[in-house]
Amino acid sequence: MSITTPKGFVASGLASGIKATGVLDLALLTTDDGKDVPTAATFTSNLAAAAPVQVSRDHLATSGGRAAGVVVSSGNANAATGARGRADAERMCALVASGLGVATEHVLVCSTGLIGIPLPMAPIEAGLPQLVAARSGSGEAAADAAQGILTTDSGRKEVLIEHPSFTVAGMAKGAGMLAPDMATMLAFLTTDAAIEPGPLGDVLRIAVRDSFNSMSVDGCTSTNDTVVLMASGRAGTADPNVVVDAVSEACAELCRQMMADAEGASRIFQVRVTGAASDGEAHQAARKVADSLLVKCSINGEDAYWGRVASDLGSAGVGFDMDRLAIAYGDVTVCRDGVAARHDPEAVARHMGGPLVDIHCHLGLADGNGVVLGVDLGYGYIDENRTTS
Amino acid sequence: MSITTPKGFVASGLASGIKATGVLDLALLTTDDGKDVPTAATFTSNLAAAAPVQVSRDHLATSGGRAAGVVVSSGNANAATGARGRADAERMCALVASGLGVATEHVLVCSTGLIGIPLPMAPIEAGLPQLVAARSGSGEAAADAAQGILTTDSGRKEVLIEHPSFTVAGMAKGAGMLAPDMATMLAFLTTDAAIEPGPLGDVLRIAVRDSFNSMSVDGCTSTNDTVVLMASGRAGTADPNVVVDAVSEACAELCRQMMADAEGASRIFQVRVTGAASDGEAHQAARKVADSLLVKCSINGEDAYWGRVASDLGSAGVGFDMDRLAIAYGDVTVCRDGVAARHDPEAVARHMGGPLVDIHCHLGLADGNGVVLGVDLGYGYIDENRTTS
Repeated sequence: MSITTPKGFVASGLASGIKATGVLDLALLTTDDGKDVPTAATFTSNLAAAAPVQVSRDHLATSGGRAAGVVVSSGNANAATGARGRADAERMCALVASGLGVATEHVLVCSTGLIGIPLPMAPIEAGLPQLVAARSGSGEAAADAAQGILTTDSGRKEVLIEHPSFTVAGMAKGAGMLAPDMATMLAFLTTDAAIEPGPLGDVLRIAVRDSFNSMSVDGCTSTNDTVVLMASGRAGTADPNVVVDAVSEACAELCRQMMADAEGASRIFQVRVTGAASDGEAHQAARKVADSLLVKCSINGEDAYWGRVASDLGSAGVGFDMDRLAIAYGDVTVCRDGVAARHDPEAVARHMGGPLVDIHCHLGLADGNGVVLGVDLGYGYIDENRTTS
Repeated sequence: MSITTPKGFVASGLASGIKATGVLDLALLTTDDGKDVPTAATFTSNLAAAAPVQVSRDHLATSGGRAAGVVVSSGNANAATGARGRADAERMCALVASGLGVATEHVLVCSTGLIGIPLPMAPIEAGLPQLVAARSGSGEAAADAAQGILTTDSGRKEVLIEHPSFTVAGMAKGAGMLAPDMATMLAFLTTDAAIEPGPLGDVLRIAVRDSFNSMSVDGCTSTNDTVVLMASGRAGTADPNVVVDAVSEACAELCRQMMADAEGASRIFQVRVTGAASDGEAHQAARKVADSLLVKCSINGEDAYWGRVASDLGSAGVGFDMDRLAIAYGDVTVCRDGVAARHDPEAVARHMGGPLVDIHCHLGLADGNGVVLGVDLGYGYIDENRTTS
């Protein structure tokens, strides 16, 4: 599987020297003929959005939702870098655009890494022409691109969804600072389905809502989150509803890979909220529980202490009827009508030791639903994050 | 110092058997003559409020802000216990009221401990008459009361503020599940100043806002938070502004003791936000940073990585001008106009290793101010909270 499997795309990766360790730190994804194609993107809601986010947003607006490629640097976020950071991000686009022979606004840019440090432009300026020259549709080149976008990730995150009439592929990076109010990570998706910029934006919005926006590693929404979806059209017209399903499936799989690689985490859990006043309130309540330090510690300890879940639901800022509250771990209801329910503790213990802990909370109000994926909190997260050096 | 130092109060503590370990688990604070006096309280905003919170709220409303005493049990929160829990809380009040010879609505009740387990009423019913009989103004009895309200605390939390014309005393419990949207803990304050129920409520509201509501151990707002302030009037009329200062000072000191005893924490830090659009937004931004897992880990590692602070401010849901953002650790400005500022890293390192890390964030908008105290995140918190057994 590779990001270049859908017809019409090429990619490359390079070690330019941004990262002192000498590993791959630049990646490029473009159309194979250098022509711009319909492209949609969603960006972080963080008001401290990094320079590349600001520049990519502007370029997509100027181009009316079309791009010929996206260039990515890893190891430095180019965030909190002011006017200089914006100029550096523009320069990256201009160099790639020059190599492709396209307008600068047809190139998007993403960066990920440490915040507050100016981008080291010398290695990047030297590297970009080589990166453009190295583009190819080969599996090796695509693997280099998928590797070049990583930071603390333990390995590449890739997906391929094959539909009879078209293909969707993706690559992503993300292992910490993950609590999307958008994606809190980088993900790049390609498809050869033909779909115009407007509908393509709808496809991406729906897919992101149910995937990247429904997971949380640590409640921290990053400054650089970006998801880009490019559609080459080479496979011909496709039903947008079918494309939504394929892109959603691709996003969900990339999410799963990110959660499995979450910094220092040993267990994934999902919080399903039903019976809320609305889907929005269900999602808000599920996120409150998924981000709760006490719940995350309980998951680490395989302890089904539902009192903490009830307390988090009560302070989630959503409508809630304590006397109708139900909480279940897996299939075992441990709280019914707001009080402890008779249950088999061994069945709960078996579920807590299983591969995916499922916490189902019914709020007893209406039919709002929402699901958020979370990870446990253990020593590993602290080890990863107590210092940046 | 003791809760009974202000004139007109007696207290007691008892090991009734709620806690299997046999340590003190009941506490009582009453007026020395059993008469009701002006009493104010603030309660958790958690919609899953525990039975004793519901009952105490009702009693204060019925009595028009007067009480003769408050009974406290520790080891079991009597939360998520439904109608039976409310009946148990009422029964605790009734038994104490009968012993004191007052109406049931003149007794308040608090509980703290595990959620979702019915209160063991047999030991409590047997213990309450002994608890009433043991009341005294002695230091030993007051110490027993201050001990009897504790759960995971490492020791008693007490304060005494002596003003020329009156006295304020307090006792508190709290070491985890601390992120007040009110107090997230229990605190009981007495004064011999004469002050009517209305102004007394104002005094408590102001003192709580600037103390208990401005600290966070883990972002988890408990189901049982309660702060009670009783005023015997024995020292005569006092200027409410002077009483506010004394009660605020008492609350701040109890806060400091709670933060110092925070479960598994090794370091306290404060987040000061200035230049916000309003005081409310400043407080919201400060809380977002104080609760950030990544910032808490950085404090644990003594790492002044301000990029995480900028990212949290940008996702705090408040107004924010990235190009005017300034961040300082102690006296050392590390970010100015939204980008890295030249500074002496050794000065920052010295501050990070000091007793109280101070993170000052200026948002560059208007003159809204707010401060929130937080604690680091280290192995200790996980050890304390991964299981309840």
